[in-house]
Amino acid sequence: MTIHKISRPVCILGLGLIGGSLLRDLATTTTTVYGFNRSPSGASAAAKEGFDVSGDLVATLQRAATDDALIVLATPMPALPTLLDALNEHAPNCGFTDVVSVKGEVYDLVRSRGMTDRYVGGHPMAGTADSGWTASQNDLFRGAAWVITFDHAYEDPSEDWLKLWLDVVTMAASVGAEVIPARVATHDEAVARISHLPHILAETLAIVGDNGGALALSLAAGSFRDGTRVAGTNPSLVQAMCETNRDALLVALDEARKLLDDARAHLSSPEKSLSELIDAGYRSRIRYEARSGTSPLGISARPVLRLHPGAAGWLSTLEQAEGLGARIEVF
Amino acid sequence: MTIHKISRPVCILGLGLIGGSLLRDLATTTTTVYGFNRSPSGASAAAKEGFDVSGDLVATLQRAATDDALIVLATPMPALPTLLDALNEHAPNCGFTDVVSVKGEVYDLVRSRGMTDRYVGGHPMAGTADSGWTASQNDLFRGAAWVITFDHAYEDPSEDWLKLWLDVVTMAASVGAEVIPARVATHDEAVARISHLPHILAETLAIVGDNGGALALSLAAGSFRDGTRVAGTNPSLVQAMCETNRDALLVALDEARKLLDDARAHLSSPEKSLSELIDAGYRSRIRYEARSGTSPLGISARPVLRLHPGAAGWLSTLEQAEGLGARIEVF
Repeated sequence: MTIHKISRPVCILGLGLIGGSLLRDLATTTTTVYGFNRSPSGASAAAKEGFDVSGDLVATLQRAATDDALIVLATPMPALPTLLDALNEHAPNCGFTDVVSVKGEVYDLVRSRGMTDRYVGGHPMAGTADSGWTASQNDLFRGAAWVITFDHAYEDPSEDWLKLWLDVVTMAASVGAEVIPARVATHDEAVARISHLPHILAETLAIVGDNGGALALSLAAGSFRDGTRVAGTNPSLVQAMCETNRDALLVALDEARKLLDDARAHLSSPEKSLSELIDAGYRSRIRYEARSGTSPLGISARPVLRLHPGAAGWLSTLEQAEGLGARIEVF
Repeated sequence: MTIHKISRPVCILGLGLIGGSLLRDLATTTTTVYGFNRSPSGASAAAKEGFDVSGDLVATLQRAATDDALIVLATPMPALPTLLDALNEHAPNCGFTDVVSVKGEVYDLVRSRGMTDRYVGGHPMAGTADSGWTASQNDLFRGAAWVITFDHAYEDPSEDWLKLWLDVVTMAASVGAEVIPARVATHDEAVARISHLPHILAETLAIVGDNGGALALSLAAGSFRDGTRVAGTNPSLVQAMCETNRDALLVALDEARKLLDDARAHLSSPEKSLSELIDAGYRSRIRYEARSGTSPLGISARPVLRLHPGAAGWLSTLEQAEGLGARIEVF
């Protein structure tokens, strides 16, 4: 793999778990990186650790405009409209990306402001149940999938956009993530299944367990602990990501409800057999274990495809990677 | 806490994850312990490690009858009827316990054979997704809840039964478990919520994720991995425990389905708000974290009650402990 270098400084807006961890990792590379955080406590905590961090959004954007930085929007969804307007006002020529877990609603905001040729969507599939600067850590993204969208590649993109796309890919790779290209709608359908539905089911399980009172909570062991872990996530973050992906989540939720309705019917029938659900679930889990993530040896289980942004055939390579869930390397 | 010693040898029938781990732990104490395993490979593997293990059920039961051992039935549910008949034939005076995760159906089998005055039900809340002798390990039960049933205490139990009850409690405590008394029906209602429903939801999530194809499986990260972990459990074990707890599982499953139906209605309404589910789920998870298991310092979060088997007031102490999910110490 050719090692690319990000061609410009990186300016991160929002230094929570994702933005803060990205700042930490990029600061260990040769890339110039600085950030803004709205909460003064987070900003001053980061500054105290020696990072180049400001609590002044306008000044930060003006600096980004001056040095033509790549701007990373790392705030929760609800802050994005205001932030995009500020970008248009104070850094109108900077390319930018984001890390929001739903891409459709972000793309609508970007498109409605005429900013698609400056934007490449991103979504690092990393996180913990904690949030904020204090939860940020080095190496959060190592081996994790980082989705980069490419819808604008079909819309006669500029040379600058191709360079921006390459820089966003390079930034994700430089912190150890595996870059997986996907279009906005395809991404949102996938994450509804593997990221948003898990939250809905975890909340549900937590409530039903709690309804059992003190004895049930006292007996709860590994299966309940793991099954409810993400219910400990800040509720406003969960709400934001689930609600902004409503249409795709409804599809996934309805599939789950159908499976549970069928299981109920089977269990209450005279045969009371749950084998259909349990056998299919087991096969699915085994398939997941084989196909996703990294092996204990740290070797990625994901196939890899190589491409050059804008070169002949790159779109079909992107589509192929999207279909395979493959990671890409750029040359 | 007064340290009791088990008053007799322990004979374990079935050396899988639970029975094997119990054998390993008891072998490190002064208690005489031996076992039987139906599969010759498991039996010879255990024997090769120096454990006192046989592949001959009748001989093992005759030995238990001779030295009046406490017999532990550590096989999956489907093997129990045959095993109980063998017990009646070859070790008709031995007290026994079991480790099956559903207590109602076991108690029916025991009662229908007139064995209630020789039986104390048990259920250690410990396990992994793996099974068999090769999955067994030392210290599997340390800090885990181990439910001991006490329904027969209301049925004019013999002195021998009270001694048996004390021995079963002592055995669980001697391997580091926290003994939580509960009646059969109460136990089954609780585990439907915190052990069986988690399996049903994990299977469901695994299938819906898998339906998303290669991209979804490639993007799946922590929330999906944790939420589907127990779907990797041997399907026949999951089926046995869920199906034998049908009535209680249906109650828990219907509560979950109702929550999901309501969430669907809220999400598809114009307000598209999931706050009701998400806020309640978050509160439930926080309550669980506060009330169950052990702290990072290894200090149990469970309240403790002290009692003496058969002493005045012990039944009300047992009932109180059951209601609180409290652990008990015997004196």
